[in-house]
Amino acid sequence: MAGSPRRTAGRRLQLPLLCLLLQGATAILFAVFVRYNHETDAALWHWRNHSNADNEFYFRYPSFQDVHTMIFVGFGFLMVFLQRYGFSSVGFTFLLAAFALQWSTLVQGFFHSFHGGHIHVGIESMINADFCAGAVLISFGAILGKTGPAQLLLMALLEVVLFGLNEFVLLSLLGVKDAGGSMTIHTFGAYFGLVLSRVLYRPQLEKSKHRQGSVYHSDLFAMIGTIFLWIFWPSFNSAPTTLGDGQHRTALNTYYSLTASTLSTFALSALVGRDGRLDMVHVQNAALAGGVVVGTSAEMMLTPFGALVAGFLAGTVSTLGYKFFTPILESKLKVQDTCGVHNLHGMPGVLGALLGVLVAGLATHEAYGDGLESVFPLLAKGQRSATSQAMHQLFGLFVTLIFASVGGSLGGLLLRLPFLDSPPDSQCYEDQIYWEVPGEHEDLAQGPLRAEEPETRA
Amino acid sequence: MAGSPRRTAGRRLQLPLLCLLLQGATAILFAVFVRYNHETDAALWHWRNHSNADNEFYFRYPSFQDVHTMIFVGFGFLMVFLQRYGFSSVGFTFLLAAFALQWSTLVQGFFHSFHGGHIHVGIESMINADFCAGAVLISFGAILGKTGPAQLLLMALLEVVLFGLNEFVLLSLLGVKDAGGSMTIHTFGAYFGLVLSRVLYRPQLEKSKHRQGSVYHSDLFAMIGTIFLWIFWPSFNSAPTTLGDGQHRTALNTYYSLTASTLSTFALSALVGRDGRLDMVHVQNAALAGGVVVGTSAEMMLTPFGALVAGFLAGTVSTLGYKFFTPILESKLKVQDTCGVHNLHGMPGVLGALLGVLVAGLATHEAYGDGLESVFPLLAKGQRSATSQAMHQLFGLFVTLIFASVGGSLGGLLLRLPFLDSPPDSQCYEDQIYWEVPGEHEDLAQGPLRAEEPETRA
Amino acid sequence: MAGSPRRTAGRRLQLPLLCLLLQGATAILFAVFVRYNHETDAALWHWRNHSNADNEFYFRYPSFQDVHTMIFVGFGFLMVFLQRYGFSSVGFTFLLAAFALQWSTLVQGFFHSFHGGHIHVGIESMINADFCAGAVLISFGAILGKTGPAQLLLMALLEVVLFGLNEFVLLSLLGVKDAGGSMTIHTFGAYFGLVLSRVLYRPQLEKSKHRQGSVYHSDLFAMIGTIFLWIFWPSFNSAPTTLGDGQHRTALNTYYSLTASTLSTFALSALVGRDGRLDMVHVQNAALAGGVVVGTSAEMMLTPFGALVAGFLAGTVSTLGYKFFTPILESKLKVQDTCGVHNLHGMPGVLGALLGVLVAGLATHEAYGDGLESVFPLLAKGQRSATSQAMHQLFGLFVTLIFASVGGSLGGLLLRLPFLDSPPDSQCYEDQIYWEVPGEHEDLAQGPLRAEEPETRA
Repeated sequence: MAGSPRRTAGRRLQLPLLCLLLQGATAILFAVFVRYNHETDAALWHWRNHSNADNEFYFRYPSFQDVHTMIFVGFGFLMVFLQRYGFSSVGFTFLLAAFALQWSTLVQGFFHSFHGGHIHVGIESMINADFCAGAVLISFGAILGKTGPAQLLLMALLEVVLFGLNEFVLLSLLGVKDAGGSMTIHTFGAYFGLVLSRVLYRPQLEKSKHRQGSVYHSDLFAMIGTIFLWIFWPSFNSAPTTLGDGQHRTALNTYYSLTASTLSTFALSALVGRDGRLDMVHVQNAALAGGVVVGTSAEMMLTPFGALVAGFLAGTVSTLGYKFFTPILESKLKVQDTCGVHNLHGMPGVLGALLGVLVAGLATHEAYGDGLESVFPLLAKGQRSATSQAMHQLFGLFVTLIFASVGGSLGGLLLRLPFLDSPPDSQCYEDQIYWEVPGEHEDLAQGPLRAEEPETRA
Repeated sequence: MAGSPRRTAGRRLQLPLLCLLLQGATAILFAVFVRYNHETDAALWHWRNHSNADNEFYFRYPSFQDVHTMIFVGFGFLMVFLQRYGFSSVGFTFLLAAFALQWSTLVQGFFHSFHGGHIHVGIESMINADFCAGAVLISFGAILGKTGPAQLLLMALLEVVLFGLNEFVLLSLLGVKDAGGSMTIHTFGAYFGLVLSRVLYRPQLEKSKHRQGSVYHSDLFAMIGTIFLWIFWPSFNSAPTTLGDGQHRTALNTYYSLTASTLSTFALSALVGRDGRLDMVHVQNAALAGGVVVGTSAEMMLTPFGALVAGFLAGTVSTLGYKFFTPILESKLKVQDTCGVHNLHGMPGVLGALLGVLVAGLATHEAYGDGLESVFPLLAKGQRSATSQAMHQLFGLFVTLIFASVGGSLGGLLLRLPFLDSPPDSQCYEDQIYWEVPGEHEDLAQGPLRAEEPETRA
Repeated sequence: MAGSPRRTAGRRLQLPLLCLLLQGATAILFAVFVRYNHETDAALWHWRNHSNADNEFYFRYPSFQDVHTMIFVGFGFLMVFLQRYGFSSVGFTFLLAAFALQWSTLVQGFFHSFHGGHIHVGIESMINADFCAGAVLISFGAILGKTGPAQLLLMALLEVVLFGLNEFVLLSLLGVKDAGGSMTIHTFGAYFGLVLSRVLYRPQLEKSKHRQGSVYHSDLFAMIGTIFLWIFWPSFNSAPTTLGDGQHRTALNTYYSLTASTLSTFALSALVGRDGRLDMVHVQNAALAGGVVVGTSAEMMLTPFGALVAGFLAGTVSTLGYKFFTPILESKLKVQDTCGVHNLHGMPGVLGALLGVLVAGLATHEAYGDGLESVFPLLAKGQRSATSQAMHQLFGLFVTLIFASVGGSLGGLLLRLPFLDSPPDSQCYEDQIYWEVPGEHEDLAQGPLRAEEPETRA
């Protein structure tokens, strides 16, 4: 057993050294490349003599803050459901996302706002960096409890690059629409993480099975994450859309879709539950699928009815996935998906991409009027038919799945480097390897921990 | 005893079938009736050629998100104080509110924005739907722990209709002002729930008395609800007011009122407490009464001083209500009010309505200037005197109490339908009937549950 | 031992009487002095015939709400880490901040917006009042667990006055820039609290040592506070800046600074931890130092690179402070700093003031263009050189330290008045003296409480 007392000095230095190295590297790259854009630079903004009310800040900052809340509070607490992994769930979310914000500012900046040798930053780059952090945290959900923080930082280092590349191919090269990221964030993040989890497959994981469930209060902490994700998802999908009706409509569609996924989640959870009982795992996760499934189409003329149908299907598929597919995923496909990201982000993400194909294919000049220019600029300019746009959307999904699978495989190989500090099979889902855990003498001593791992307290 | 193991197959299907039925019905009604309004429709918005900055979204969406947080995080966690009912409190809040948002979009739409055979939706309908969900959750607070989720959905089905009707009578027919809903939301929701609780009176409820209190951490979870309600209440009251000074003043007045209700709550709680000790029930609830009490008058020229006095009185009345009136309510009037909604929403709501009568009666052209048009349009047009407006406000309170009482009675009869799945007297305030509860073998086993209800674990 | 059963009737009346007295006094002062400003008054706003979109509300209210969340949720829950002091941490935060909002409206109003015999209030005064409450809560953090609520209200009564005076000297008399309050809020609040804690030094505090740590779930509650502080800090620093590029740039700089302090905190925490383990105390606190350290300079042309470097240093200094300096502070300097505010607010605040000196000293017309007028009006008007501005900034830090030290000393003498209700040495960090605590018979009885303090349960 490679429990913490026997971790070598080399291993205990991995996390601090990697943090310092990565921070040093991004700081140097920031010094060389990153500059204020014309909305954040004192001289540029005043030279152009805009009205302050026109500053993009006032149109996007409230949405940004909602997204920021989702990334750090939402994702962080959603993963606190594990009884002995709360510090790691919320703490590593914090660390990973903080690094991803810096690193994706650079990567996305190179792809999207590199002019005159510089990356220009402002509220839009902040939103995009948070989105990229979201994809990294989705992947984290698939391998939660089975990797150390240094491994996670390396995963983020790789994933942010591939996220930026995939996003660039879809949005800039293929002209695909995906404001809320059904493809670029959810599908990409989920399958990257699932493939990575496959490569890291642990046949002996049942040694940590007793720690894989929740306790009463850890489920309530997780609901903090769920609810903040749920309420702010309309801001997530609408944060980067065109201003005016686009942002407004996206928020509205997402709002309705989420109400429907909530109803179908409760319905299905009770239907498949023992004695008709509801399952917190479903409520914490599947109820959110309505946000994922309209990520591509919410800015389109989906109609409120369409949003309800989409959300209903997503909640249904997601709940059934937790009940029936996750066990198969582990037993047959050897994918150990801790948070069930396949059910919350994978399937609903693919479904959302396909819904985008459908709604894009149905786009007409009548339905969008002069607003077509904002939603489908290539259609408005006559460079593409609706059918062609739909085909491009479909191809975008295909590209995303390729990037995610190849990326997840590479990530898995990277994380399997033998010198990396990884928890042993008997110590998965356990905070004590990486954290000082208080109160063992009291409320936690009665848990299963004490009997089994006295050596970790030496 | 009708404990869960003996629930018939018919009963276990009630929740899923009702969810599916209601979702199917609202989806069909959405398909037929609900359309984007001119601010969310791509063609309509661009045809009118507005500046994007004029889109109502930018004036109301931040307030909407605060309200949305209050409904789902605020109400949800406020009710988590019960030691064994946290899953149900936050989970059923989630379910009920999600359904209410859809259903009230339809009901309020028919009353307020039905043009050309269609209901038009946008940010204002989203805010109004959340408000209606708030009223439903207030009623839920009165019967918390004593009803099953299918019963709750039926309650919402009825209550949303009566809420819409009452609101229509007050705002559209009587020309009553009630932006923050002292009458339409708080008074209506509270007395609807209290009358309903009266009809559902359980003489044998002491069988579940041991579960009716809090534990240390459940009180801290409840404070999450309290604090989010408290900080965002200025947004709640100001979300639907006229733009500019109206919204600004409403937020300011509410902010001051809440500070005063907090001080009076602490003062009174210590004064009436054993050995001068503070009571978390008071702090969690009565401190919020300052938001309720200015729901009607905060958009008026209440003055900051007026807001302080109003908040102070509300906190005082509410705290004394918890201490002295709630026990009488149960013993004499047979109203079992789980969350004390009479103290937080009932009395402060009525007080707020009366404060609105007073402040409306004092309105003058000098005090409001040209702003009179926004706050009291009928006064500005000379169609009504201030005294007449005050009388209409008072009549609005009367109408609300009638609607709430009749509605609550009907609701009670509906929920007493014998085939509905209701928890037995010995299983109230207990998650385990409706939820898979983890960790019984560990941290919860030492609670009172194990010894008394081994039959539920069969 | 002066445990609660022996508290005299006089002592138990201190809190309620003080609350009522303070509320009465502020209400009278509000009646005499406080009036709506021209953006919240119906007559004034409409008389000036502005467009509603120009109302300051729309530029600052979303930021205000983020700040409001930080004060009540952020500070409140951050201090819940103590195992037996959660009710007091979040409850007294609530009480203190509610009083401080009223009182600082008056004090700051006299200094900053007193015209024609009246104080005029609106969104800017709301933000400023919340800022002042923040300083009070920082001081509270230094003495957490060792003072009663009546003492805390007296502290706030004094501190708010000195805060207002110090802020007036810096911003109005010296022309110092300090939008995010590195000096006026963090340095002032920290050293006021530390000096006060020194005066209240308890040599016998080890009698309560067993309650000074956290338990597993109290650390998770504290992370709610941490994360909400972290995500909304960009709004904190930018809430009062000039509109347009100023607000935008401030938020951006703070965002990057926080990511860097997070990375350095994780690096240093693991580096100095036992077996490379991370410490929740560091993550909960030091990761936030990046927000404090750019409080003065974030509105300046700090550059994103500068923000990263500043945040990195702040996280490093703060983490090392928790590890190495806090023990010395207690053993050598007799300052018992419960929350380690010296590490989170004190040192990073001073560092932030010095960074402001540096960045102000480097200001040029080239770098700021016409924006110089907004950031450094005295430089733009030619009344001051950059070097002179830097010297004024430095002098502002000096003034702040004087005000804080003198104020903290006075505060300490005030709080030592013998008739004030203070917890005995053996009852520090204990909710039960001031609160009804539920569930002692259950989950808490196994803690250290029962054996030692049976007398408190009489």
